[in-house]
Amino acid sequence: MKQFIVVGLGRFGLSVAKTLAENDYNVLAIDSNGERVQEIANEVTHAVEADATDEEALRTLGVRNFDVAVISIGDNIHANILSTLILKELGVPYVVVKAQDALHGKVLSKVGADRVVYPERDMGVRIAHNLISSNVLDYIEFAPDYSVIEIIATPNMLGNTLAELKLRSQFNINVMAIKRGEELNITPGANDKVLEGDVLVVMGKNDDLDKLKHY
Amino acid sequence: MKQFIVVGLGRFGLSVAKTLAENDYNVLAIDSNGERVQEIANEVTHAVEADATDEEALRTLGVRNFDVAVISIGDNIHANILSTLILKELGVPYVVVKAQDALHGKVLSKVGADRVVYPERDMGVRIAHNLISSNVLDYIEFAPDYSVIEIIATPNMLGNTLAELKLRSQFNINVMAIKRGEELNITPGANDKVLEGDVLVVMGKNDDLDKLKHY
Ligand SMILES: Nc1ncnc2c1ncn2[C@@H]1O[C@H](COP(=O)(O)OP(=O)(O)OP(=O)(O)O)[C@@H](O)[C@H]1O
Ligand SMILES: Nc1ncnc2c1ncn2[C@@H]1O[C@H](COP(=O)(O)OP(=O)(O)OP(=O)(O)O)[C@@H](O)[C@H]1O
Ligand SMILES: [Ca+2]
Ligand SMILES: [Ca+2]
Ligand SMILES: [Ca+2]
Ligand SMILES: [Ca+2]
Repeated sequence: MKQFIVVGLGRFGLSVAKTLAENDYNVLAIDSNGERVQEIANEVTHAVEADATDEEALRTLGVRNFDVAVISIGDNIHANILSTLILKELGVPYVVVKAQDALHGKVLSKVGADRVVYPERDMGVRIAHNLISSNVLDYIEFAPDYSVIEIIATPNMLGNTLAELKLRSQFNINVMAIKRGEELNITPGANDKVLEGDVLVVMGKNDDLDKLKHY
Repeated sequence: MKQFIVVGLGRFGLSVAKTLAENDYNVLAIDSNGERVQEIANEVTHAVEADATDEEALRTLGVRNFDVAVISIGDNIHANILSTLILKELGVPYVVVKAQDALHGKVLSKVGADRVVYPERDMGVRIAHNLISSNVLDYIEFAPDYSVIEIIATPNMLGNTLAELKLRSQFNINVMAIKRGEELNITPGANDKVLEGDVLVVMGKNDDLDKLKHY
């Protein structure tokens, strides 16, 4: 089973560490702020107060025995870079780092980060899209032009069957599931009616899905 | 067309503002830090240096003419709360606020926030899941136990047709699309072969999808 290090226990690091621990993975959580370490101490395998730019400290913690490190030190760009460099040098096979912006991300890749993430930027994009089309609850873009979206049934759909709505022939999209309260229909058929509050899981081209949102 | 205010131009606020502007929406961006305001000035309709806890300043900016405000002031919890209160009082119909943690979120709802978001926490959960199953590229959980995931074909799948793999009867899951480089097959059939590097878009119960990840 993979072993994880999480460096920097801000909101992002904390959430990564907790989620891994909840899924029964070994997690070594590191922060230079003792209070942050205390907060998580009971929820992960090990929680240690240490400076992640201190090579000796990290070596002593045996970081080279871990498979993955997630670094999210926050505003201190220099510390982020230094910590990445040290963890790679000490032999951690896979190091994921939260970057400040694209430029910072480039430097992180250069010093050895295996993956650079931009949680704030990515969620900003996601939430902006959600605010634009408030009936879209979530989406995956799985090809440059294609997504699966969760959409709340629009007023024009209500009371009609899928056959009557002709969504496939009109919009070229596919209804894959219909959610109604606790009920879930994952084989929606031509005769299934759309009711108020239904959530449709739909696959299609982004342009076609955009049209559907305003149907 | 909806008009947006974005208060606090950290990474999250900046990304929300830029995404809305790219989609041709009117955006009024506000930050108390002049440098942050300069950075975004050319990308949004209006960018203004102002303290979002100053009721007079916000009133002068005509915030009551806007439909949606997104507040993400960051570590200053008090400023976040005060700004939410003022924007609601000035009549902004829909106010979304980035919270520090669940407790902060509760207070924000009490003072009138219409929606509270936790971008760092949500992305932490997402990335942790992705690190646990590194062949899962993305997912939507659309019902408590059901998701759509994007998964890289596992070694055991390679060279077999969907019929041979019996994914539906073995795992009770549905392959909705197969991505191969630039090509996308959104009507995968029994005779379609899975090749190395293929990405499958699959719908099913979380437990069944977990089994598929390790197939
Ligand atoms: N040199 C260091 N070694 C270990 N931890 C550090 C170091 N420098 C900063 N940290 C820790 O990193 C954590 C994250 O920092 P900060 O809260 O500034 O980032 P952030 O990007 O705003 O976080 P988030 O958005 O995830 O809440 C803090 O808990 C801080 O104590
Ligand atoms: N009273 C205020 N009025 C307007 N803007 C403010 C106020 N107080 C802080 N801000 C701005 O809010 C922005 C976000 O703050 P900060 O960077 O601390 O948050 P954050 O949660 O770490 O951001 P992110 O994670 O999105 O990068 C900053 O640009 C800051 O100047
Ligand atoms: Ca942040
Ligand atoms: Ca994706
Ligand atoms: Ca911060
Ligand atoms: Ca969802």
